[in-house]
Amino acid sequence: MKSVSSCIELDTGRGISLHDLMADIRDAVAGSGIRNGFVTVTSQHTTTAITINEHETRLIEDVKAFLARLIPPGDRYLHNDIQLRDCPPDEPENAHSHLASMLLGSSEVISLVNGDLVLGQYQSVMLVELDGPRQRKVSVQVYGE
Amino acid sequence: MKSVSSCIELDTGRGISLHDLMADIRDAVAGSGIRNGFVTVTSQHTTTAITINEHETRLIEDVKAFLARLIPPGDRYLHNDIQLRDCPPDEPENAHSHLASMLLGSSEVISLVNGDLVLGQYQSVMLVELDGPRQRKVSVQVYGE
Amino acid sequence: MKSVSSCIELDTGRGISLHDLMADIRDAVAGSGIRNGFVTVTSQHTTTAITINEHETRLIEDVKAFLARLIPPGDRYLHNDIQLRDCPPDEPENAHSHLASMLLGSSEVISLVNGDLVLGQYQSVMLVELDGPRQRKVSVQVYGE
Repeated sequence: MKSVSSCIELDTGRGISLHDLMADIRDAVAGSGIRNGFVTVTSQHTTTAITINEHETRLIEDVKAFLARLIPPGDRYLHNDIQLRDCPPDEPENAHSHLASMLLGSSEVISLVNGDLVLGQYQSVMLVELDGPRQRKVSVQVYGE
Repeated sequence: MKSVSSCIELDTGRGISLHDLMADIRDAVAGSGIRNGFVTVTSQHTTTAITINEHETRLIEDVKAFLARLIPPGDRYLHNDIQLRDCPPDEPENAHSHLASMLLGSSEVISLVNGDLVLGQYQSVMLVELDGPRQRKVSVQVYGE
Repeated sequence: MKSVSSCIELDTGRGISLHDLMADIRDAVAGSGIRNGFVTVTSQHTTTAITINEHETRLIEDVKAFLARLIPPGDRYLHNDIQLRDCPPDEPENAHSHLASMLLGSSEVISLVNGDLVLGQYQSVMLVELDGPRQRKVSVQVYGE
């Protein structure tokens, strides 16, 4: 059993944006030389998430609208009282981003069989930026033989 | 470290339905000969999800009612403008199913110790169908020794 | 590839509470002798969840308020008709806790590189208690070399 660790770095869009990671993940798999095993994808931030779904332009707009309705950024959140917390003065008011991150989840695991990720036709692994724009990192590990 | 890959295929119910996968997963574990390691379960569709919870008839009805209230199928979603997208004419209007899939998540990982999945008394791994009825596939992999 | 299985046991707070598991997970990693691989964290209950986010006092209060608004405990749920189900008479009315558990998810997987968990500065793996106080168990497994 081999294990190859890598990191995807990307610059994200403003507010909420969804970034297709498939090309980077396939590169990581190809570079690992591993053909059977699995891949773990874990976000390294508390205001991003990892999701597997269809990377379709109009659906992405639906995700943004849905999250803004479900967890309105303008609602009252205690975490947004920056002056009451021990943090830098440029800390953003992003409690809604943390809450969305928890709902969407920070990791997914995908099987790898004969060099291919076991995913359906429309499935893409995506980073969900919830408080952009930022520079973000996603941990990708490939395990197997 | 051994790795055994398998696929559960099932026909799902109409609209939202929850399908207990425990018998199939236990079969996959028994068939693998692996007694210590872990199991990954990943859905292969963008309008299904994997969840671990209690497979109880009345709770399943609560899940259906809750999701219908949280993400009303009749709301306005851009993804449902089928004629504006490059897709088959029989494409269903299922933006709400995609959104629910993202919230619930597409994979879970469960430890395997001495031949048993490390799950609590009431925990079942389930496929959540969010846009049925359909034929669905779930990827199950058993890793270990 | 080595695999070391362990279990975190903890007493949780009343109602909803978030418990930082990082010290216990780091102990499990150190005790395993494994330096490169990954760690899986899976909750063993149907009214708890595993999340990775910032363990910040005011944000935790926001999580409690958000979940209570999203899934009101006092709403009508079929699962709460205890007398219609085959269960002990002291069964709690906790349908809302099950629903929150499904949204938040039951497992996460984190990479381990050179002895360190690959997590961002503000990320903590937490158990989310959704129906406390209770005695709870979390399965932690460390894999690698």
